[in-house]
Amino acid sequence: MSGLLVAPSSRLRRTPFWDGVLAEGAKACSVYNRMLLPTLFRTPEEDYRHLKEHVQLWDVSCQRQVEISGPDAGRLVQMLTPRFIGGMRVRQCKYAPVVDNKGGMLNDPVLVKLAGDRFWFSLADSDFLLMAKGLAIGAGLDAEAFEPDVSPLAVQGPKSEELMRRVFGPRVSDVGFFEFDWFEFGGTEHVVSRSGYSKQGGFEIYLDGADLGMPLWRELMAAGTDLQVGAGCPTYAERVEAGLLSYGNDITSDHNPFECGLGKFCDLAKAVSCIGRDALLEAERKGLARQIRYLSIDGPPVPPLDRKWPVTCGGAAAGSVGSATWSPDFRTNVAIAMISRECFADGTRVQVDAQGEIRDATVRESTFI
Amino acid sequence: MSGLLVAPSSRLRRTPFWDGVLAEGAKACSVYNRMLLPTLFRTPEEDYRHLKEHVQLWDVSCQRQVEISGPDAGRLVQMLTPRFIGGMRVRQCKYAPVVDNKGGMLNDPVLVKLAGDRFWFSLADSDFLLMAKGLAIGAGLDAEAFEPDVSPLAVQGPKSEELMRRVFGPRVSDVGFFEFDWFEFGGTEHVVSRSGYSKQGGFEIYLDGADLGMPLWRELMAAGTDLQVGAGCPTYAERVEAGLLSYGNDITSDHNPFECGLGKFCDLAKAVSCIGRDALLEAERKGLARQIRYLSIDGPPVPPLDRKWPVTCGGAAAGSVGSATWSPDFRTNVAIAMISRECFADGTRVQVDAQGEIRDATVRESTFI
Repeated sequence: MSGLLVAPSSRLRRTPFWDGVLAEGAKACSVYNRMLLPTLFRTPEEDYRHLKEHVQLWDVSCQRQVEISGPDAGRLVQMLTPRFIGGMRVRQCKYAPVVDNKGGMLNDPVLVKLAGDRFWFSLADSDFLLMAKGLAIGAGLDAEAFEPDVSPLAVQGPKSEELMRRVFGPRVSDVGFFEFDWFEFGGTEHVVSRSGYSKQGGFEIYLDGADLGMPLWRELMAAGTDLQVGAGCPTYAERVEAGLLSYGNDITSDHNPFECGLGKFCDLAKAVSCIGRDALLEAERKGLARQIRYLSIDGPPVPPLDRKWPVTCGGAAAGSVGSATWSPDFRTNVAIAMISRECFADGTRVQVDAQGEIRDATVRESTFI
Repeated sequence: MSGLLVAPSSRLRRTPFWDGVLAEGAKACSVYNRMLLPTLFRTPEEDYRHLKEHVQLWDVSCQRQVEISGPDAGRLVQMLTPRFIGGMRVRQCKYAPVVDNKGGMLNDPVLVKLAGDRFWFSLADSDFLLMAKGLAIGAGLDAEAFEPDVSPLAVQGPKSEELMRRVFGPRVSDVGFFEFDWFEFGGTEHVVSRSGYSKQGGFEIYLDGADLGMPLWRELMAAGTDLQVGAGCPTYAERVEAGLLSYGNDITSDHNPFECGLGKFCDLAKAVSCIGRDALLEAERKGLARQIRYLSIDGPPVPPLDRKWPVTCGGAAAGSVGSATWSPDFRTNVAIAMISRECFADGTRVQVDAQGEIRDATVRESTFI
């Protein structure tokens, strides 16, 4: 840990589940979309093991929603993403990079289609609401952009489906991957999708109304005692093993979707109104100068990463590491890095400056899990 | 403090002065514009006394700049703020609320005019860059919006002018309040303004280029030994005594500038292109339903505020407190609150639910200092 305490303020928003998070003994947190995000409950390894074996409740309220609604909602959404949304069905979720007019990534949200003229962008860490608002006002679109009172709670781990069936009924099993349906809790219908920021399987409950936060938390905890349900959070080692990108850590607005390995989500032939289309066509024509890769870093556990770590290859600058930590299962340090094309071939040996310690590392094209 | 440690990551950006901040023994921090902000060095009272008696270096790098430049820069700036910028001179700074098309506050930055076609918005805590970008793209303006590598370092306290003269020369004394000039350090010209988030007097150095951060920090520290220069940070009690608003704590996008007490910065007759003008004219016509007030809260020091505190008046809901803390000089709890018009007259007695403790309090129209 950093050794620094978080100073309390109302600006760093508490979540609807925060009393539960504190009662479960959260030890550390981050701030994400100006909201608190718990990051540690037991030890990093215990949290990781528990996620891979049981079921966890994750307070990911900080995945704030930007609702886009109104007659021009679809038009506004398509201006923001190079992914073609024309054929998207209601109850579908799509991972949808959003870009500016230079093709730079502004966020990597999940797009949720609630109705023909109503969408949510479920956000990574940037106030993308302001981009949607500015663009809608500037272009004179008949669409609203706002943040509803919706706070996701993720239920993740191999026993998540069993726990969800106990609380929401067997119909949850019918929800396909990256699809959602509505389920009742506390007299309100909530969106429940099969998704989440791990590769251990699970669901995300888009809690509609903060008042229902603690009742939902308590009901899930009570229903899962024999499943060893516990509080958890996005688990650093597991998400890096899985190659799940973190906006702000691994990718920023300096990167285009191709560099982020998200070229398959750019339908440039069809997404003709995307504001970044011309820049992305040009980037495609030029070819890649760098791209996201995974690294296995040699040696004992690396120090906690609190800044980008420079990568070199034969002495020349070759990119930087945005996420790195020890993997208990793979018995190596796993990392995500942006690597220059000269050095990004699978198996290339590079050097990482891990906050002063120079370590050898191997570039991988594939994730660990 | 919250008792929770901040988990390290590269997403929560370190500042150019961070090595200095840690060496000076920072104990707690916040996250502001996705960047670290130190919040405590000694005890809260020692930090407060030291600010009022000596001179402090504040790492306020998190006051990120949004640069607006290009032929349509002035036009874009005026669309974003109801403050008329037509007569603004180069080297002037203006406190300039920025609003959306409903008149809701998106930030309360200081606008810095660098040239006829080049401005900085020095931000409070919101990614206002995305609003500027979205609006420029949507409206087809010939203006760029981006975040330059500029990190403010504030020099605050009664001895700040003496310290600044030693490092930048006697010409700093010519800089008027809310004006700036360029001063050389390390071979680069930096904007230096007479401003800052305290009422103790001082300057802000807009460090141009992160590499010069630690050299500047060290030079100021070395030059001020006999002045008892030390690290500091925006000081909760002092800024609440002074009535300095904190975006996200005291005001949000739910509030218009009149409600924030910023009506004097709305030049609606002249700022005709401001996107929020119609909504603000309507708000002006309707009159105030609530407004920012200061409170003196009875009793011993209040608990650390980590959420909005509801205010009631004769049993009826009357608003909420966004900032509250003990003032060593005034020997009372000082607070900033948004209060309904029925209860906002000077001297009104109200009740505050301070995280479970009900306290009596007195409404004030004027600040404490």
